[in-house]
Amino acid sequence: MITSPSNSKIKHVAMLQKDAGLRKMEALFVTEGFRMTSEVPPVLLRELYLSESAAGKPEYADLAKKLTDPAGGYTGEEVCIVADKAFERMCDTKHPQGICAVVSKPSYKKEDIFPRQANGKERYLILENVQDPGNVGTMVRTAEAAGMTAVLFAGTCADLFNPKTIRSTMGSLFRVPFLHFSQTGEMLELLKNRGIRTFAAALEGSVSYRDAVYGEKCAVMIGNEGNGLSKEAISLADERIRIPMEGKVESLNASISAAVLMYEMGRE
Amino acid sequence: MITSPSNSKIKHVAMLQKDAGLRKMEALFVTEGFRMTSEVPPVLLRELYLSESAAGKPEYADLAKKLTDPAGGYTGEEVCIVADKAFERMCDTKHPQGICAVVSKPSYKKEDIFPRQANGKERYLILENVQDPGNVGTMVRTAEAAGMTAVLFAGTCADLFNPKTIRSTMGSLFRVPFLHFSQTGEMLELLKNRGIRTFAAALEGSVSYRDAVYGEKCAVMIGNEGNGLSKEAISLADERIRIPMEGKVESLNASISAAVLMYEMGRE
Repeated sequence: MITSPSNSKIKHVAMLQKDAGLRKMEALFVTEGFRMTSEVPPVLLRELYLSESAAGKPEYADLAKKLTDPAGGYTGEEVCIVADKAFERMCDTKHPQGICAVVSKPSYKKEDIFPRQANGKERYLILENVQDPGNVGTMVRTAEAAGMTAVLFAGTCADLFNPKTIRSTMGSLFRVPFLHFSQTGEMLELLKNRGIRTFAAALEGSVSYRDAVYGEKCAVMIGNEGNGLSKEAISLADERIRIPMEGKVESLNASISAAVLMYEMGRE
Repeated sequence: MITSPSNSKIKHVAMLQKDAGLRKMEALFVTEGFRMTSEVPPVLLRELYLSESAAGKPEYADLAKKLTDPAGGYTGEEVCIVADKAFERMCDTKHPQGICAVVSKPSYKKEDIFPRQANGKERYLILENVQDPGNVGTMVRTAEAAGMTAVLFAGTCADLFNPKTIRSTMGSLFRVPFLHFSQTGEMLELLKNRGIRTFAAALEGSVSYRDAVYGEKCAVMIGNEGNGLSKEAISLADERIRIPMEGKVESLNASISAAVLMYEMGRE
């Protein structure tokens, strides 16, 4: 059992929670809690930690057994038991459930996301410079529910592997493919070449989202919480759509806009 | 200028921020920041505070002048200038903008919400035992945008005047009428007597929200984040509707469900 909060493993997990740069460099992140950790695909699970208290609870002991069982495709590495005080040090939540894991980031290539011979429907959610981790996580969760093919990130968005983002995805980050593009223009050119129509959500959009014709291959773009989409995104999109708003509301929350638009795309 | 953090006014504002019981007893709450404070209706504004730094900025000085001008319907009470350190004590945000106010809670009676001779459309959002302050605030903001007549709270929801809720409403809490009912059954009977059809959002709903016929007078009910609507709410509602979900998503975020349903009700 690890008891010291300054144990190198404990310190490494704590750093992974806090430091997006380290997560990027090592392509690792941390899942916390019973539900989220139980959803980690076997090929991605690297290290498993149980708090001393949790190790005594049958449901946690059973989960740990399952997540270390080679028969289930797991590596079979031992679970580390950690004294409660040291365990808290590893966690982002204030009152952690007694299980967490170090996990390899899932990663996708363009070929995974855009199949060479695509038949049928393709629907994408594009997030450009979305800053709030909770918003990003909620949008990934809603994207799965609304049947999106993938989520594309453009510019600088909140890190998908930020602890708050992970929690907000409720496990969808393991199931929704995603891809990052540093340049919005480059991404839009790729989509255009693949016959995917792009719709920019903009307050001054000329067409109501209810009247737009999305077609079989389409992508909806959501911009930064304060400033909306970039001028480039708005001008290069095939169409600019708006969500009608009554009263004196100036804008909707970004994840709300995304949900209303994704469910509309799914209607056709 | 107030300089001491233990000044009674400062302590009172700080208590109002933290204590829902005090807010209820005094029917007061606190708005923070330039935008939210500038939206306070004249009849509700009670006390106005500027930080020492903000008092030196023309835009804040102008706002303070406007909010104390009897010609605009304000009481004309003096603005209190507060030393920066003491001002921070009054605020819920970590890096407060330099203005905040003590405000009377808006309150509505049944007669305000349900007019005696109602013609035309009536659409309501009902929240039952919704616990997350951010969710409640976002739903009130979306309710205004989607053209809801009012928001009805049933059971025990997060306090609408919690600092986090207020921020999430983005000012909509001053514009959307609302009413609290301690008993879901009592509320549903009132709605039934007024010819308002109620739709319970439930995972096991038999009808897709896209196929439901909402009619001119309707209300959609959203339940607790973890447990959904109460059995009572589900059984007493006129119809049980579900939002289709693909993938392995078990549920949507409550404010996302509410948005998708409210915008669907607004479509007819």
